Amino acid sequence: MSSEGASGCGRLYGVGVGPGDPELLTLKAVRILQTVPVICVPQAEFSSDSYALTIAKDFLDLSRQEVLRLPFPTAGREASQVWREAAETIALHLQQGQDVAFIAEGDPMLYSTFSYVYQNIREMHPHLPVEIIPGISSVMAAAAKAGVPLATRSQRLAILPAMYGTDDLEQVMAEYDTVVLMKVNRKTLQALSRLGEIAPEGKAVYVRRVTTPQEQVVHDLRQLSPNDLEYFSLVIITK
Amino acid sequence: MSSEGASGCGRLYGVGVGPGDPELLTLKAVRILQTVPVICVPQAEFSSDSYALTIAKDFLDLSRQEVLRLPFPTAGREASQVWREAAETIALHLQQGQDVAFIAEGDPMLYSTFSYVYQNIREMHPHLPVEIIPGISSVMAAAAKAGVPLATRSQRLAILPAMYGTDDLEQVMAEYDTVVLMKVNRKTLQALSRLGEIAPEGKAVYVRRVTTPQEQVVHDLRQLSPNDLEYFSLVIITK
Repeated sequence: MSSEGASGCGRLYGVGVGPGDPELLTLKAVRILQTVPVICVPQAEFSSDSYALTIAKDFLDLSRQEVLRLPFPTAGREASQVWREAAETIALHLQQGQDVAFIAEGDPMLYSTFSYVYQNIREMHPHLPVEIIPGISSVMAAAAKAGVPLATRSQRLAILPAMYGTDDLEQVMAEYDTVVLMKVNRKTLQALSRLGEIAPEGKAVYVRRVTTPQEQVVHDLRQLSPNDLEYFSLVIITK
Repeated sequence: MSSEGASGCGRLYGVGVGPGDPELLTLKAVRILQTVPVICVPQAEFSSDSYALTIAKDFLDLSRQEVLRLPFPTAGREASQVWREAAETIALHLQQGQDVAFIAEGDPMLYSTFSYVYQNIREMHPHLPVEIIPGISSVMAAAAKAGVPLATRSQRLAILPAMYGTDDLEQVMAEYDTVVLMKVNRKTLQALSRLGEIAPEGKAVYVRRVTTPQEQVVHDLRQLSPNDLEYFSLVIITK
């Protein structure tokens, strides 16, 4: 099936599939995943399977739908070139009149590989139709699971990627009521440990693999060891 | 139907119903809305209907489900007292073994009235079971519609409630790659106008009533008049 425009081209959908629980897909995401002929997933070279595909797989019929696996950038090649090639591969399908759904864990506009593909498609093929279906972000899912409101009334929320440094965490904490650190690593834990000495009244909760069977919620960060850390994790800090 | 625990009490669900399009409810939200005996909505005194209820109504069967309308705080009464009374009303239903779904537009943990009810229930009745179902936030839906990624890789995102002042907007813009101003008002427009003189390379997009028939996306903020402004609106500013 295709929603061909006047151009005869297919449509690219960026579909957020949420943080892990397949029941957190939206009705719209399910409808689109069930009707497009081509499902596109980004995949790391040595990974057994795409995490986004694992979340969405029960809604697909692989006897009639093609799964297009696009490589993630790896150390050996320039990332921008890899994403340009991915965009070209998708564009070929669209130009043949096929709709393509690129599936993204969480939301496609928040720390998602979809945004690289999207920006390249927009630049190289501005006439190709694109529709983005928002998804449940792990930020909202973690707040829900931990029972920690992210913001109310006049409060301010900051969302930071922990992996690129938390040197100014103390300042951020002073200016924002809630701070979310994405993709927790050893440096994050060290920064939080320092912060505990500086601002002991701050409360932090660590959540990983939210809404999956491997979910873990830790309210006392001193109980965390570096072995607990992984990509699909975040810390919510509130005053 | 009730998911009674050992206590015999019902469960309170905080259910995010997304920004407006009923197709943006999650499968889980739909399942819970269709099974609970009591639907709880906050409602302003002189409003014709609850916005969250409008989004969810097609999934309800009002011949067998009760809609419990709880008043919003109004000018005449102290807000904290109003929310305590709302929490007590809900607790009575839970103690009678009925499950209650409190519906929240967007996500229940981000600028939602649910957090007031939740915090009161937690304090006054800590034994009552509560489960929060995340929803699509208008922030993600607006980014999807406007085609503006909120954050990639090492970028930082700040979400601010515009109504409580944007005096330090220039500083926030210097420290964050993307800034979302919620609930745009005249002061926001003035601040953005000033910012345009200071940082003309910044790009802003205004989105209101995203994913509804009244949706409006405005890329040139100079085209906005105060008459266009309303509660369900936001501005995304990127560098």
